[in-house]
Amino acid sequence: MRIDIITVLPELLKSPFEASILKRAIDKGIVEVHLHNLRDYGQGNYKQVDDYQFGGGAGMVLMIEPIDRCISMLTEQRDYDEIIYLTPDGDTLNQGIANQLSLKQNVIMLCGHYKGVDQRVRDKFVTREISVGDYVLSGGELGAAILCDAVIRLIPGVLNDETSALTDTFQDNLLAPPVYTRPAEYKGMEVPKILLSGNTPKIDEWREEQALQKTQEKRPDLLK
Amino acid sequence: MRIDIITVLPELLKSPFEASILKRAIDKGIVEVHLHNLRDYGQGNYKQVDDYQFGGGAGMVLMIEPIDRCISMLTEQRDYDEIIYLTPDGDTLNQGIANQLSLKQNVIMLCGHYKGVDQRVRDKFVTREISVGDYVLSGGELGAAILCDAVIRLIPGVLNDETSALTDTFQDNLLAPPVYTRPAEYKGMEVPKILLSGNTPKIDEWREEQALQKTQEKRPDLLK
Repeated sequence: MRIDIITVLPELLKSPFEASILKRAIDKGIVEVHLHNLRDYGQGNYKQVDDYQFGGGAGMVLMIEPIDRCISMLTEQRDYDEIIYLTPDGDTLNQGIANQLSLKQNVIMLCGHYKGVDQRVRDKFVTREISVGDYVLSGGELGAAILCDAVIRLIPGVLNDETSALTDTFQDNLLAPPVYTRPAEYKGMEVPKILLSGNTPKIDEWREEQALQKTQEKRPDLLK
Repeated sequence: MRIDIITVLPELLKSPFEASILKRAIDKGIVEVHLHNLRDYGQGNYKQVDDYQFGGGAGMVLMIEPIDRCISMLTEQRDYDEIIYLTPDGDTLNQGIANQLSLKQNVIMLCGHYKGVDQRVRDKFVTREISVGDYVLSGGELGAAILCDAVIRLIPGVLNDETSALTDTFQDNLLAPPVYTRPAEYKGMEVPKILLSGNTPKIDEWREEQALQKTQEKRPDLLK
C-alpha cells in the first residue's frame, strides 16, 4: 500500500511514522508513506497556499491551485483508489471503513487546515471525505495519522500475531472483555478467579459474557 | 492547564507537540505538556511494563504496578481533575466533552497499548475513559494527541482569532458551510456569486442555509 499525505505541516507527522507499528510496517516494506509539503506547490515567491475566505469571516482557506498542482503531479505518476479529505464534516471513521481502506493500493490523504479547503477541491478532486470523530482539530494532520494507524495495522503481516487484531473491540461489534495480568493480587485487588483456572472453554465463555455485558451497558447502539 | 501523558512510546508524541497550535500554546505558557515514559517506572532490571494476559490469548497487557508508581508520583505533587484512560471502549469524544475538559487545570492522560491496561488500573485509578472514535489504534498515543489538540485549541488565547473556533463545525451542532477563496474562477469552476456580493446579511443567511442543508443531508443525527 502507498499513502501520499498532502499537508502544510509535514513536520507534525514525523514522529508518528517513526515509531511503533507504522514504522514497522514501513520497515517491512508493506507500506510506503510519502509526506508532501503543500508549500512546495504554493503560489509566487512567498509560496502562498491559503487566502481569506470570500464573503468575509475569520479563518484562512487552503487555495485550490497548489492542491491541484500537487494532486496532478501524483495522479500523473500512478492511479489512486481514493483521494481522501480529512474533515470533521466527512463520513465518521469506523472499523468497517478502516477494513475497506486496508485493501486499497494507492491512497492520497489531503489534510485540511485553518478553515478547510476551497469547496471546489472537494467537489472536483476528492473521492471520499472522512472524519475521525465529532470534534474539531487544528488540522487534518492528526486525523491522517489516526487513519493511517487504523488502516495499516489491519494489513496482513503488519501485526505480529494476526489474531490480536481480530479479537479487538469493534471487529465483532462487541467491546473487548476486561484483561488482567500479573500479579494475581495487588494491594488487595484480585484477578477474577476464572482467569486463573486454566479452564479454557470456561474462560472463553466468561469473556464472551463480559464483552456482551459491557457492550450492553456502555454501547447498546453497537448491538443493533 | 497542565497535561501529563503516560505512555510506552513518548517518542511517537514528539512532533505533534512541536508544531502548530500545540506548540504555540506551550510557547505562550498557556499549556504545559509533560510526557512520561512508563518504562522509567517498569519492574526489575528489564524495566518490564507488560505481561501476558491471565487466561491466555494473543496480545500483551500493561501491568498495574508501573502505572501505579507513575500516577502516585504525579498525584503526590499536585491534585488532578481527571485521570483519563484513552481506550476504544471509553466514552466517545465529542465537542461537548472537549469544551468541558478545556476548563480543567491538571489532567493525566494514560495511553493504552497492545491489548490495553490491567482492568484494575481502570477500576482503581482512572476517573474517565475516552475513545476518539469507533476504531482500533495500535495505542492510545494518537488518541491522546487528538484529545490534546481538540481541548487545547479551545482554551482562550490559544487561537489567534477566537471567533474562528466558535464558528467551527459542531460548536452549534451544525456542519460548517462551504468555504471558498481566490481565484473566483478556476478552470471553469466558479465561486457562488452571493459570496462576491459584499452583502453581509445575505451572505450570513446563505451560510446558515448551507450549514443547515448540509447537516440535514450528511448528519441528520446532529439536529435531533
